[in-house]
Amino acid sequence: MPLRTPDEYRSAVSGDGRTLYYRGEQIKDILLHPELRIAVDHAAIDYEVAEDPAHRDLTVAVDDAGEPYSAYYRLPRSADDLLQRSRLIELCTGLGGTMVTLIKEIGSDGLFALQRVLEGAALDRATTFLEHCRREDLAVAVAQTDVKGDRSKGPHQQADKDLYVHVVEERADGIVVRGAKCHTSISANADEIMVFPTRAMGPDDRDFAVAFAVPANAPGLSMYISSYGAGDRDAWDFPLSSRHKMLETLTVFDDVFVPWERVFLCREPELAGPLALSFVEYHRFTAVSYKLPLLDLLVGSAALIADMNGVAKAGHIRDKLTHLVIYAETVRALTESAAARAIVDDRGIAYPDPLTTNLAKYTFATQYHHALELVQDCAGGLLVTGPGAEDWASDEIRPVLEKYFVGAAPASDRLRVMNLISDLTARDFGGYHAVLAVHAEGSIEAEKMQILRAYEAEGPLAYARKLAGIT
Amino acid sequence: MPLRTPDEYRSAVSGDGRTLYYRGEQIKDILLHPELRIAVDHAAIDYEVAEDPAHRDLTVAVDDAGEPYSAYYRLPRSADDLLQRSRLIELCTGLGGTMVTLIKEIGSDGLFALQRVLEGAALDRATTFLEHCRREDLAVAVAQTDVKGDRSKGPHQQADKDLYVHVVEERADGIVVRGAKCHTSISANADEIMVFPTRAMGPDDRDFAVAFAVPANAPGLSMYISSYGAGDRDAWDFPLSSRHKMLETLTVFDDVFVPWERVFLCREPELAGPLALSFVEYHRFTAVSYKLPLLDLLVGSAALIADMNGVAKAGHIRDKLTHLVIYAETVRALTESAAARAIVDDRGIAYPDPLTTNLAKYTFATQYHHALELVQDCAGGLLVTGPGAEDWASDEIRPVLEKYFVGAAPASDRLRVMNLISDLTARDFGGYHAVLAVHAEGSIEAEKMQILRAYEAEGPLAYARKLAGIT
Amino acid sequence: MPLRTPDEYRSAVSGDGRTLYYRGEQIKDILLHPELRIAVDHAAIDYEVAEDPAHRDLTVAVDDAGEPYSAYYRLPRSADDLLQRSRLIELCTGLGGTMVTLIKEIGSDGLFALQRVLEGAALDRATTFLEHCRREDLAVAVAQTDVKGDRSKGPHQQADKDLYVHVVEERADGIVVRGAKCHTSISANADEIMVFPTRAMGPDDRDFAVAFAVPANAPGLSMYISSYGAGDRDAWDFPLSSRHKMLETLTVFDDVFVPWERVFLCREPELAGPLALSFVEYHRFTAVSYKLPLLDLLVGSAALIADMNGVAKAGHIRDKLTHLVIYAETVRALTESAAARAIVDDRGIAYPDPLTTNLAKYTFATQYHHALELVQDCAGGLLVTGPGAEDWASDEIRPVLEKYFVGAAPASDRLRVMNLISDLTARDFGGYHAVLAVHAEGSIEAEKMQILRAYEAEGPLAYARKLAGIT
Amino acid sequence: MPLRTPDEYRSAVSGDGRTLYYRGEQIKDILLHPELRIAVDHAAIDYEVAEDPAHRDLTVAVDDAGEPYSAYYRLPRSADDLLQRSRLIELCTGLGGTMVTLIKEIGSDGLFALQRVLEGAALDRATTFLEHCRREDLAVAVAQTDVKGDRSKGPHQQADKDLYVHVVEERADGIVVRGAKCHTSISANADEIMVFPTRAMGPDDRDFAVAFAVPANAPGLSMYISSYGAGDRDAWDFPLSSRHKMLETLTVFDDVFVPWERVFLCREPELAGPLALSFVEYHRFTAVSYKLPLLDLLVGSAALIADMNGVAKAGHIRDKLTHLVIYAETVRALTESAAARAIVDDRGIAYPDPLTTNLAKYTFATQYHHALELVQDCAGGLLVTGPGAEDWASDEIRPVLEKYFVGAAPASDRLRVMNLISDLTARDFGGYHAVLAVHAEGSIEAEKMQILRAYEAEGPLAYARKLAGIT
Repeated sequence: MPLRTPDEYRSAVSGDGRTLYYRGEQIKDILLHPELRIAVDHAAIDYEVAEDPAHRDLTVAVDDAGEPYSAYYRLPRSADDLLQRSRLIELCTGLGGTMVTLIKEIGSDGLFALQRVLEGAALDRATTFLEHCRREDLAVAVAQTDVKGDRSKGPHQQADKDLYVHVVEERADGIVVRGAKCHTSISANADEIMVFPTRAMGPDDRDFAVAFAVPANAPGLSMYISSYGAGDRDAWDFPLSSRHKMLETLTVFDDVFVPWERVFLCREPELAGPLALSFVEYHRFTAVSYKLPLLDLLVGSAALIADMNGVAKAGHIRDKLTHLVIYAETVRALTESAAARAIVDDRGIAYPDPLTTNLAKYTFATQYHHALELVQDCAGGLLVTGPGAEDWASDEIRPVLEKYFVGAAPASDRLRVMNLISDLTARDFGGYHAVLAVHAEGSIEAEKMQILRAYEAEGPLAYARKLAGIT
Repeated sequence: MPLRTPDEYRSAVSGDGRTLYYRGEQIKDILLHPELRIAVDHAAIDYEVAEDPAHRDLTVAVDDAGEPYSAYYRLPRSADDLLQRSRLIELCTGLGGTMVTLIKEIGSDGLFALQRVLEGAALDRATTFLEHCRREDLAVAVAQTDVKGDRSKGPHQQADKDLYVHVVEERADGIVVRGAKCHTSISANADEIMVFPTRAMGPDDRDFAVAFAVPANAPGLSMYISSYGAGDRDAWDFPLSSRHKMLETLTVFDDVFVPWERVFLCREPELAGPLALSFVEYHRFTAVSYKLPLLDLLVGSAALIADMNGVAKAGHIRDKLTHLVIYAETVRALTESAAARAIVDDRGIAYPDPLTTNLAKYTFATQYHHALELVQDCAGGLLVTGPGAEDWASDEIRPVLEKYFVGAAPASDRLRVMNLISDLTARDFGGYHAVLAVHAEGSIEAEKMQILRAYEAEGPLAYARKLAGIT
Repeated sequence: MPLRTPDEYRSAVSGDGRTLYYRGEQIKDILLHPELRIAVDHAAIDYEVAEDPAHRDLTVAVDDAGEPYSAYYRLPRSADDLLQRSRLIELCTGLGGTMVTLIKEIGSDGLFALQRVLEGAALDRATTFLEHCRREDLAVAVAQTDVKGDRSKGPHQQADKDLYVHVVEERADGIVVRGAKCHTSISANADEIMVFPTRAMGPDDRDFAVAFAVPANAPGLSMYISSYGAGDRDAWDFPLSSRHKMLETLTVFDDVFVPWERVFLCREPELAGPLALSFVEYHRFTAVSYKLPLLDLLVGSAALIADMNGVAKAGHIRDKLTHLVIYAETVRALTESAAARAIVDDRGIAYPDPLTTNLAKYTFATQYHHALELVQDCAGGLLVTGPGAEDWASDEIRPVLEKYFVGAAPASDRLRVMNLISDLTARDFGGYHAVLAVHAEGSIEAEKMQILRAYEAEGPLAYARKLAGIT
Repeated sequence: MPLRTPDEYRSAVSGDGRTLYYRGEQIKDILLHPELRIAVDHAAIDYEVAEDPAHRDLTVAVDDAGEPYSAYYRLPRSADDLLQRSRLIELCTGLGGTMVTLIKEIGSDGLFALQRVLEGAALDRATTFLEHCRREDLAVAVAQTDVKGDRSKGPHQQADKDLYVHVVEERADGIVVRGAKCHTSISANADEIMVFPTRAMGPDDRDFAVAFAVPANAPGLSMYISSYGAGDRDAWDFPLSSRHKMLETLTVFDDVFVPWERVFLCREPELAGPLALSFVEYHRFTAVSYKLPLLDLLVGSAALIADMNGVAKAGHIRDKLTHLVIYAETVRALTESAAARAIVDDRGIAYPDPLTTNLAKYTFATQYHHALELVQDCAGGLLVTGPGAEDWASDEIRPVLEKYFVGAAPASDRLRVMNLISDLTARDFGGYHAVLAVHAEGSIEAEKMQILRAYEAEGPLAYARKLAGIT
C-alpha cells in the first residue's frame, strides 16, 4: 500500500466533522480558512518530501512484506535507526523554514513509548494501533499536558476534577473520558489524537492514569485553536511565518467515548510515570533534532547580514559569530551523540541516551535567548525600524528605500535578510520559537531533573573517596 | 506663558503639511490614521502629566521670571537636577506602559549637548533654539544615525555621498543639506527635528560635520514611518501595544534649506565627535532612566503569573524571581549612581557620570534577553498557545476558557496577565524592546568602548606596580 | 586618651596567657612565631594608619569631650558616616595588599548591631562594652558561625549539643557557655572576642540564643589556628602572602564563664535572628568595602601584565580588560550606593541599605571566579611554569631568566608582576580570596535570600496588575 | 621486545648527564631529589599500567610481527583507534589523581603530526624516529611554545633572535640550533625532546621554521624546572599534590647540534603552520581526554562533601550539582564525538574532528572557573580555615577536631574530603589546573579561532539566503 499523497492528507483532515474553533468561531473546514490552511500546507511537507526521490532513503522504509511506509513509523532498533530518524526530522524541518512539521514525529514518539512500557493485551492494542497509523500513513497528535489548574496541587486535589483528563466511566465496550489538555500541537490538522498522562501519579490519582487514541472527529471532542500569530501576513515582511505555521489547541474531552481497542492505559497509576517518561525520552530527542535548522539559520542569517552591513571582519562581530557557531554545533554534536549512545532495551527497541538527549536540550534551551541577542546585535536596529511590504510595493517609495538602505549589498537583498531575522527573532514567530525553547517538550527544570536522575554518580563518588583516602 | 495642553500638542502636529509616508501611502494628517494616532496619544502623556497636580513637582519648572515651563527643558546644574530628570522620565514611561514618550527627553538631551560643546555665535544660536523649544513647550526629535551604507567605510568613502547627511551648499541666508538618517524616533509626531552628526569625523569628512534644526514640515524633508508593529490590535490580546506606540522614520533630506540661525555646526569635523559624544552622555542616561518601568514590569509580571499559576513557592521559581530582582535593582542603583556622581563642567552644566551611565546601560543591555527567558519560564507555554480576544468575546467559547484556564486565580485574570507578558516578551512589541535593548542609544560595543575610555586606570596600575615591588 | 600605637597593640596580644594552637603545638606568644607574627604585623596596619597625618580625617574621630578615638568605633548616624567608614576600610585594606585588617571592622559591625537590636539593661551593657572598646582602642573579633554538625538539622536536633555554642548554666554573677565556633577571623590576635548567634532560632533552641564578649585570654577558651597557607614564603615568589596574613580559628568554649555585664543575650531566641541579621547588614557592607582594593588589583595587574606581554592592544585583551573594569566598577558603584541609600532607624542609627549591600556582595561573589579566568588569560601560562626566588637569586641562572623572560618589559619587572598575579590568583592566597568570595560574610544563597526579602514587590506587582487591566 | 618496566624508565632518566636546574641549583640526578622524584614516580604510572593485566587491552598494542608495544604509539587509523586512545589517556590520568602523565601522550601527538604533514626524506626520518620511540618505549616531550619576547612582534622582529628557537648553522652532518622554549611539560623526566614550531611563519621567519628531536642529555641543552608548587607537602593536607606532580621547564638550546636524521623541518616556513596545527589537532584531543577524570572529581567531590555536610537535599545544592554534571558530561560527550567524527586523511591516518575537539576544549576551558565556584560553594569555608596535618597528628588536638568537625559524616572523613577539595581547587595544585584550563594546549582565543575556521558556513549561509528569498 503506497504512502498518502499530500492531497490525500489534505482531504482527510478537511470537512470530516471535527469540532474546531478559531478566533471566536467554529470552523467547518480547515482547508477553507486562509490562515489555518497555511498550517495544513506546512504539515503536508511531510508527505511531499516522501515523494521526492532525492530523499527517499531517509523518508521511506520498507516492511517485511516489501511494502513501503513512512520512515517515521519505523520502530528504532539501533543507534543508526535513531540517527536516521534525527536526520529525517532535520530534513523536514529545514524544508519547513525552521518550523517542525510534527505530524508524524510526535505521534511516533508516543507509539514507540507504548511499545516500550505496555504489557500483554494493552501492548497488543498499542501494536495494532501503531500498524494502523503506519499502514494508513496518518498524521497523529499527542495530547499530554493537562490544563492543570492550580499547579501547587496534584490531579485529585483540584477543585474541578476536569482540569486533568480522567476516566468518567468504564463500560463493556470502552471508556468515557472527560477533561482538557492544552498546548496540543498539530491536533487541528491531525487524523488521530493520542492522549497520554502528563506525569507520575499516585494511588489517589487513579482516574487520571489514562492513555488512549481517538480520531480527530470523535464526538464530544472539541479543539480550540490558539489565535497566537493570527492575521494575514505578507511574504516580504514575514518570509517565514507567512508560509509556515503550527497550530496548538485547547483540547476538550466532553464525555468522549473510547472503545477498548484504543485504550492503552486505564486507572493504572503505576504506569503513568513510566509512560510519560518514555514518551519524553523520544520526544525530547525529536525536539533537539528539529532545532538544528533553526540553529543553522541563526548562524547563517547573522553571518549573512553582518556581511551585507559591511561589518563581517570586525573583531566583535567575529566573536559573536563564533559564539553562535559554538552554540549550534554543540547542540548538533550532543544530538548525534544521544543517538550514537542509543540504549536498546530487552525488547530490542532502541531509545536515545536520556542523559545526552537532555544535555542537548538543556544546552539548546538555556542559550537560545542569548543567541537571539547576538543575531540582533549583528543585524542592527533596522530589524524594528525598517519599511514594510506596502512601502516596497510602492513605485514612489521603493526607489527611496533602494537608495538609502543599501549596505555592502543592495537594499533589496539586505532588507529581505532583515525581514528574515525580524520574523525569526523579533516578531511573534520569533516569540513562538523563544517560548518553545523554554517550555516545549519539557521545561528547563524538567531537563535538569532528568540529567541528575540519569547521571551515574557512583563512579565519580568512588573516585573522590579513593583520592581522599577514605577506605 | 503656560505649558501646552495635550490637545494643543495634537493640533500642532496634525495637518501642518509635513511629508509622511506609512504602509505605502502618503499620510495627510497623522491624527486621522487610527494606528498612527496611537503614537500621538501616547506622546501626549508628556503633556497630560504636566497638568496633574500630583506630579507637578517633577514635571514643571519655573524660570527666573516666575514663568512655568516643562521640567524636561531645565538645563541640569547638579546631581539633584539629574536625579529629578531621571525620575520624571521614569514617571512618564511608567504611565506609557513601559514605552518612553521621548518627545522632550531626546530633544533636551540634544539641546544640553549643544550647550556643553559649542562656542561663540553657534552657542548663541543653540541657546536661542533651546529657549524657543522651552517657551513653546515643543516636541523635539533628534535624527542622529545616518543610514551609513557599507559600514566598513567612512562617510566620504561611500559610493553615494547621500548615505550620510551632508552640506550641499552654503548660502548667505543658510545652508542646503541632503542625505538620510534612519531610526529617527518620534520624528513623525514632533514639532522640530534636530540633526546631529553620528560619529567623530576626520578632515575628509568635512561636509558631513553638520548639525541643525528644522521644523517637521520643512520643504524637502520626507519621513517614511516604519511599518513594524503595524495593524489593528485588540486591547485584550495586546494590553500594551494596543495603547502605546512609538514611531520611527527613515528621515530624508532632499536639499532642505536651513537658515543660519538654526545651523549649529557646519563643516567643523573636529566638533562632530565631541557633539555626538556629549549627546550620547545625556541620551544614554535618558535610556537607563526610561528602562526602569520596563524592568519593574518584568519582575512584577513574572511574580504575578507565578502566583496565579500556583508555583510561586517553588525553589526554582523563587530563584528566577531573585535573578530578575537583582537585574532590575542593579540597573536602578547604577542609574541613580550615575546621577549622584554628576560631573559639573566649567560652564556649570551637569552631566551624568559617563562610566556609571554606561555601566547601567551595559548591565541593562546584556542581561535583557536572559531576563525574558526567566519571565517566560515563570509564565508557561500558554504565552503562545492561548486563546484570543475573539474567543474571549464569544459567549459560546468564553465559558470553556473560564473553566479550563483557571489557575490559582480565575482564568479572566490569569489570561490577562498571560497576554500582558506575551505582548511584553513574545510578540512584536516585545521584539521591539529586545532590539532596542541591544541597539538603542548605542550598541553594546559602544558602551564597552565608553567604559574603557572613561575608566581611570592610573590608580589600579600604580597599585599593581607597588604591590609587585616595581619601583 | 590617645589611640594605641602599633606596638601597644602588639604587646597587648602577646604573652597574655591566651590559649592558642598552631600546626600541632600550643603557642605561648604569637609574636614569637615567625608565621603568626605576619598576621599581627598585618593587623597593626590599622594602628599605623591612624598615626599617619595624611589619613587622619578618615581614621580618627573625636568624641563630645574632644577626645580622639578610632573612627572605626563611630556609630554611624548618616549616609556620609557610612561612606566614610567604607573609605576607611578600603584604605586599610589597600595598605594591607588586598587583605582586610578586620581587627576593628568586624568588632564594630557587631557593636553597632547590638545598639540597634537590644533594649533596656542589655542595651546598657552593650553600650558600656562599646565605650570600653572605643576608649581602649581594642582589636575585637566576632565569632558567629557555629560548627553546626549535620547541617540538615537545627541546633537542638544535633547529636552533640556542643556543636552550637550554648548556655550551660546561669549563675548569680554570670553564665557558663560551651561549644565551638569556626571560621573566626582575627581572633588569635584580638583583644576581645564577641560571640553572636549564627541564625534565627525557635523556642526549642533557647539555650543557643546567646551573645556575649570575653577577653581573648578567658579561661576555658581555646583557639585552634588554621594551618591553611602555612610555611615560610619568599617575598619574590609571594609578594602578597609573604607580607599579609589573616588568621582564622576554631574557637572552643569549654565551660567559659561570662560575667553578666558582658552578656548581651541569654536564652532569648526571638532576638537571635534580628541580632544575626543586623550584624550581617553591617558586616556585608564591610565586606564589599574591603573587596574594592582586590578588584582594583585584578584590573590593574591584568592591564599591567598585558602591556608587559605586548598584547595590550589585541581586541580580545581589551575586551577582557573591559569586563574586569565593568565588574570592579559595578561593585564599587553599588557599594557607594548602599551607603548613599542609608536607612536611619528610630534610634538615629544609620545602616546601609540591605538590598543594595546584597546586590554589591552578590555581584562581587558571583563574578569573582570568572574574573580570575580573565586575569589569568591576560597573564599567560608563565603563572604556573615560571622560575622561583632561588633561581632569581642565583648568579648563574638569573642571566638566563633575564634573557628569556623579557617581554615588552624587562624580565625583572615582568616576572614580578607574574608572581603578583600568581600569588593573587593561582596559589593558596588566591584560593583563600576565592573561597572567601563564595562564603565569607554569608554565602551566595544567603545574599539571594536577603535580596528577595528586602525587595519591595508591591509596586511592581501593582504595576503589572494595572497594565494587565486587572481591577 | 617487551615494554619497559617502571624501573627501567626511572633508570633511564636519572644520572644520564642531562642539565637540570631546580630551585637555584643544578640537579645531578632527578631521582635523588625528593620533590622531583614525585614527578618521575607519577610519570611511571604509564609504565605501571601497561603491566596490569586488567588494562592490557587499552595499554598494549601488537605490531605486524606480533611484538607488543605501548598503545600510545599506535598511529590511529579509525574513529575507534581515537576513542581507544582517549580511554587510555583517561585511564592513566585517573590513576594519576587528575594529573595527566603525558610522557607518551604529547610525544605521540607530535609523532603523528609529523606523519600527516611531512613528505619524502623528512617523512622517512620522522617514521624512523617514531619506530625508535615505539620500540624503545620512550618518554617523549614536545617543546613548542617559544618564549616569544614582545608578543606584538613576530619572530624575526624581536630584538633578540634567540627568543624563538632557530637554525644557526647548517652543516654536512646536521644543524645547530639556538633559543628557548617555555612551558615544556615533562621534559625534565623524558628520554627525548621533540621541538616544533609554535605558529605559522612567513618567508622572513625562515630560520625559525625548524623541527627536530634530541635526547634529553644533548650537549648544550639546559632545562630550568619551574619551582611552582615547590616544597614538602604532607599527604593529609595535600592528598593529590603530595603524590602527583608534573614538571615544566624553560628549555634552552645553546648551540645544540642535531644530526640530520633527527631534523624534520629546516627553514621551510610554509610547513611551520601545518605542522603546528596538526600537532595541536592531536594534542587538544589529548587535552580533553585527560580532563575527564578532573571533571569527574569535581562532580564526585562536590556531591560527597555536600552529603557529609548534610546539605545534599537542599534545592540550591542539587542545582549546583546538576550544573557540574552538565559541565562534565557535555565535555565528555563532545570528546567522544570528536573521536567518532574522526577524519581519515589520504594517507589513511585518522585525526579527531577539529571542530568538535575545539568545542570540547572551549567548553572545558570557559566553564572551569565557574565549576570551581560551585564546588567551593558545596564544600564551605572550611576549605581555607581548617586544621592541618600536624594538628591531626597531635593526640591533644585531634579529639577536639573529631568532636567539632563532625558533619553528617565523621570528622576524619569530612576533613579528608575538605583537604581533597582544597588541594584540587584552593591551593597551588588547584591554581595549576585553573591556569592550565585557560592556557594549556592553546588559549581560549585559539580555540575560538579554530572553531570559526573549521566551521562549514556554506550550508547555513545558503539556507539563510533561500529562506530570505534571495536568488
